[in-house]
Amino acid sequence: MKVGIAGATAYTSLELIKLLLRHPRVEISYLGVRREGSPRISEIFPSLRRLIELPCSGLEPEDVPKGVDLLFVTLPPKVSMNYVPRYLRRGVRVIDFSADYRFKDPTVYEKWYKVSHTDPEGLKRAVYGLPELYRKEIIGASLVSNPGCYPVSTILPLAPLLKKGLVEPTDIIVDSKSGVSGRGREATEASHYCECNENIEAYSVGTHRHTPEIEEVLADRVGMRVKVYFTPHLAPMDRGILSTIYARHKGSAGEEALRVTLKSFYPEEPFIRIKEAGEFPRTKEVTNTNFCDISLNVVGERVILLSAIDNLIKGASGEAVQNMNVMFGFEEALGLL
Amino acid sequence: MKVGIAGATAYTSLELIKLLLRHPRVEISYLGVRREGSPRISEIFPSLRRLIELPCSGLEPEDVPKGVDLLFVTLPPKVSMNYVPRYLRRGVRVIDFSADYRFKDPTVYEKWYKVSHTDPEGLKRAVYGLPELYRKEIIGASLVSNPGCYPVSTILPLAPLLKKGLVEPTDIIVDSKSGVSGRGREATEASHYCECNENIEAYSVGTHRHTPEIEEVLADRVGMRVKVYFTPHLAPMDRGILSTIYARHKGSAGEEALRVTLKSFYPEEPFIRIKEAGEFPRTKEVTNTNFCDISLNVVGERVILLSAIDNLIKGASGEAVQNMNVMFGFEEALGLL
Amino acid sequence: MKVGIAGATAYTSLELIKLLLRHPRVEISYLGVRREGSPRISEIFPSLRRLIELPCSGLEPEDVPKGVDLLFVTLPPKVSMNYVPRYLRRGVRVIDFSADYRFKDPTVYEKWYKVSHTDPEGLKRAVYGLPELYRKEIIGASLVSNPGCYPVSTILPLAPLLKKGLVEPTDIIVDSKSGVSGRGREATEASHYCECNENIEAYSVGTHRHTPEIEEVLADRVGMRVKVYFTPHLAPMDRGILSTIYARHKGSAGEEALRVTLKSFYPEEPFIRIKEAGEFPRTKEVTNTNFCDISLNVVGERVILLSAIDNLIKGASGEAVQNMNVMFGFEEALGLL
Amino acid sequence: MKVGIAGATAYTSLELIKLLLRHPRVEISYLGVRREGSPRISEIFPSLRRLIELPCSGLEPEDVPKGVDLLFVTLPPKVSMNYVPRYLRRGVRVIDFSADYRFKDPTVYEKWYKVSHTDPEGLKRAVYGLPELYRKEIIGASLVSNPGCYPVSTILPLAPLLKKGLVEPTDIIVDSKSGVSGRGREATEASHYCECNENIEAYSVGTHRHTPEIEEVLADRVGMRVKVYFTPHLAPMDRGILSTIYARHKGSAGEEALRVTLKSFYPEEPFIRIKEAGEFPRTKEVTNTNFCDISLNVVGERVILLSAIDNLIKGASGEAVQNMNVMFGFEEALGLL
Repeated sequence: MKVGIAGATAYTSLELIKLLLRHPRVEISYLGVRREGSPRISEIFPSLRRLIELPCSGLEPEDVPKGVDLLFVTLPPKVSMNYVPRYLRRGVRVIDFSADYRFKDPTVYEKWYKVSHTDPEGLKRAVYGLPELYRKEIIGASLVSNPGCYPVSTILPLAPLLKKGLVEPTDIIVDSKSGVSGRGREATEASHYCECNENIEAYSVGTHRHTPEIEEVLADRVGMRVKVYFTPHLAPMDRGILSTIYARHKGSAGEEALRVTLKSFYPEEPFIRIKEAGEFPRTKEVTNTNFCDISLNVVGERVILLSAIDNLIKGASGEAVQNMNVMFGFEEALGLL
Repeated sequence: MKVGIAGATAYTSLELIKLLLRHPRVEISYLGVRREGSPRISEIFPSLRRLIELPCSGLEPEDVPKGVDLLFVTLPPKVSMNYVPRYLRRGVRVIDFSADYRFKDPTVYEKWYKVSHTDPEGLKRAVYGLPELYRKEIIGASLVSNPGCYPVSTILPLAPLLKKGLVEPTDIIVDSKSGVSGRGREATEASHYCECNENIEAYSVGTHRHTPEIEEVLADRVGMRVKVYFTPHLAPMDRGILSTIYARHKGSAGEEALRVTLKSFYPEEPFIRIKEAGEFPRTKEVTNTNFCDISLNVVGERVILLSAIDNLIKGASGEAVQNMNVMFGFEEALGLL
Repeated sequence: MKVGIAGATAYTSLELIKLLLRHPRVEISYLGVRREGSPRISEIFPSLRRLIELPCSGLEPEDVPKGVDLLFVTLPPKVSMNYVPRYLRRGVRVIDFSADYRFKDPTVYEKWYKVSHTDPEGLKRAVYGLPELYRKEIIGASLVSNPGCYPVSTILPLAPLLKKGLVEPTDIIVDSKSGVSGRGREATEASHYCECNENIEAYSVGTHRHTPEIEEVLADRVGMRVKVYFTPHLAPMDRGILSTIYARHKGSAGEEALRVTLKSFYPEEPFIRIKEAGEFPRTKEVTNTNFCDISLNVVGERVILLSAIDNLIKGASGEAVQNMNVMFGFEEALGLL
Repeated sequence: MKVGIAGATAYTSLELIKLLLRHPRVEISYLGVRREGSPRISEIFPSLRRLIELPCSGLEPEDVPKGVDLLFVTLPPKVSMNYVPRYLRRGVRVIDFSADYRFKDPTVYEKWYKVSHTDPEGLKRAVYGLPELYRKEIIGASLVSNPGCYPVSTILPLAPLLKKGLVEPTDIIVDSKSGVSGRGREATEASHYCECNENIEAYSVGTHRHTPEIEEVLADRVGMRVKVYFTPHLAPMDRGILSTIYARHKGSAGEEALRVTLKSFYPEEPFIRIKEAGEFPRTKEVTNTNFCDISLNVVGERVILLSAIDNLIKGASGEAVQNMNVMFGFEEALGLL
């Protein structure tokens, strides 16, 4: 199967290319870039030399070669929605990495992204690409919206407990720590080595755009309003997200019963690993993998969940490959273990 | 003035020595060690060569030279309480870095540290060495108990708001991130470079011994029971603590009013810096300083406080020098700016 | 094909397990450990959970299940030579990671490793496992000695120029920088995060045991005595080796001609990438790959070669898989791209 | 004494400000910036809040307040020489951090910096600010040229051995490793955290501008032509330079005799520390200090010198303060220990 990437110069695209090169059922036939002209991708990412020497093309739909069945669109939010409908019209299926197709309600998008949504039709068609919760919908989707990295790390541990009524759906605190690659490849003062190294800090306190994504997706899956206080932090490392989640315990089930609930909610999931009592996730144990490791503790009136993912894999490119596998009927873990 | 350090080989002792060498009013006359014999301290810490060549001595009270007015005791918990009363009996004043003298109630100590307290008399005399909240008591104290690093970063931002009744005293969530030096100098699998680097993880979830310290000190200062959910994390950096604190907002005062409350609670404090709206603390901005930087945001029903300290300075050795300055009537910031 | 690992708890074994799990032609049937008893390997390396749950066994030959065709022996030097001959006697082929089988001359081994060699027979049979230079010998070998990480990074760039007489064989300076994983998994003061982080240092100046290995292998391949000054350094990163090599230019061939010589010496090598003029290797560009990236500059009377490898892959476990592929007639890059 | 800084927003200026704030004899009265307008310096470097709140001014000579006796000029090369002569004409003494005044011969400057030197008069007056070798000249200088960071780390270990004829003056190889702060504060792809972290690489192989500086200064002090092969590397850390120097041994003096030569060349130097046999410098042991730690080994025909400095202190701002102390008759180590 032929696939392409529109937006090939992002860090997450580098990861995606590496994953796709290793995938036994696909071939990369198109790499679209915005401004860089038509260099070979290995000139942009020298680590790819010998692995793929494809020259880059433009982003226009006519730049995409015929025969491409799936496009991964890794363009930034607000840019993506200008291209996605035009790709779809050519009959290509799309997995979009931006936030542009993550919200059912365009007013939520407009409130948080400060622009009108220009493709409300696409918004309706789009399926949220978290296979653990939307597998059936993904199978037939022409447009899958790949989730945000923080939402993946938050929704997966919370959904089972909310669904079973074991924690309160409001007053959930999510304290997330991310590696610097989460901020993208742009060179700014904030991404300068000497500013990030030996430093940890919070950012976008109370205003991060992944907040409504977490709330809307959880609400959709558990059938009630969900309220989270979400604070992202930047930690001095390349990759990885650790989310520490504090929810209010509801009912009388004890810690072990809650752990069993988590496990039985995800009985066959290839990428969810639930920690036993006394164990905690470590981002390093999921680096370069598509796993989401989860632990659970009951402390006083709180249930404390910890989750670890690789923000570039399960939080982006690995998730996209998993979505592709679901969309095209491949074994779900193919190329990801 | 002559001072000494009992427990000279800890990381925090290295910082303490550097601070004391720069302090214009003191001279280091004694360095006691547990097992290392009598090497010059610069053989243990080569960075000190040329700065101090004092040979180390034993830990017994008779090893402490006459004329020493103050001993910094940086021994581990449970060990410290075997030495402190004997040092005090020689007429030396003591600043103890361990947890052994931080609790008024020996049963709390015994519950969390799993041993009987062998110096209940000392416990009664000891003053908690957080000058911002216990300055008057510290002035005349013979035994000052230097606070834990996480408690410093938590108590300073919370005390003003609790005291003024602006946040609920229970259901406070404290999510702290510390550099690896906080774990001490012992070589273990957990402190191996390849385990810590490129990794972030939580530890001691719901069971960390700084929890009761935070609760008891805050309760003592604000006059009501306080309950915190405290989760420490290990971040891949040498030093620094960032604490993200989620308290429930009480009353109708807005964000700016709360910020003013913080500032006016600490009007003349040399080491407290309150961030303006839109600014957040960064651990790197306090590295190698005795500052505690604090920000405040109101988000929905929550007040979110962030604080940054250097765990080895304001969280340990700088705090101890500040305590010394208070105890001996020096200018409080002497040697610390 | 069934393979096993004797010494499964080393960092390089973790990498080896990951590579073998992804290799389409082999199955891991045995994991031998020295002292840990019989835990599942995922208890030792939690990152392996779900990927392999094999319980560990002892190291004795009879612990190795029948049907295992190849054993990777990742035991330390001096230990390895006690096990390897006994494994071989059971008809298993062996790839040994230690230094025990790298020297043709047992007196060199004994001089640098300070013990008598107990398996001189094995020493004679052993083939040095650098496929780029010993491919033919490796094909039929029963015992392959996997090279040291520094030697791989040094021998590959130097061999072509020495062979063609373009640099002097003596007075070669090799200044290598390695990540901390090169020091192994033992917890010591030297491997403590706070000692390695934000630090670079040299070690074993003039005395590192990889010196004679580099000299002997190069001499064997180019047919003349070779003398290198080798200085290893420890850099604050998990993995990667950068070697900066200063050789004396011989003859009148210019920089581009020398670069062509390098390229034409390795015309079809799947894992050698020669940089163009103006480009330099970066360890990050080879992380998690089996590549060796090489650049060449002529500066005055010196030829300056730079090479970058991942010490755990091309410098250890990837090299071993490449050797296995050669030994068993698989495509040489199988499972390594 | 009143001092000022022209170019206050560089990383090295932040270090300089911190050092000057701690210096008992000076007061910072002027902070000149190129483009940033007149913010308080603590708005640019929030870590300075409470320590200094001086507003920044322009760079013109008339922006410098009267009464300023010394200006530290931390402007980039090529820019500096447009300002320095005009500052000097106002009767202010200058310590210049750029390369503009480091060469006696303007043609060398022009060859390496690709522009004509516009202040040849200044070039003649300027004294090279390495007090260990130019102390007498610095005392009366009106213009001191602060050395490059790599040259400091190279010249100090080499000068004694060259001077005494114990190593050959040509064929010296200098392999230096620097932290990222050496590249300055500009945000570029090369300074992006995710490019620097977990990576080591060489740059400017054979073309770095510190090469002629090292050669010219050494030649000037030892009275013969000196030739170095200098290769700088970027290591994943904030600060520190480790230089590994390979010189050819001359004469029959053994390792210990050479070590004694080093020590007796610098008998009273406050900032030179010579390591004993078996010890090697570590950059971490000089971080935040003005020390230069040096070791020496004889290996075969080579003398291997290692030196460690903090590039922002002994390699820049600490060196400048040391120069100031010499120029104004203060104790040389004042404010630097």
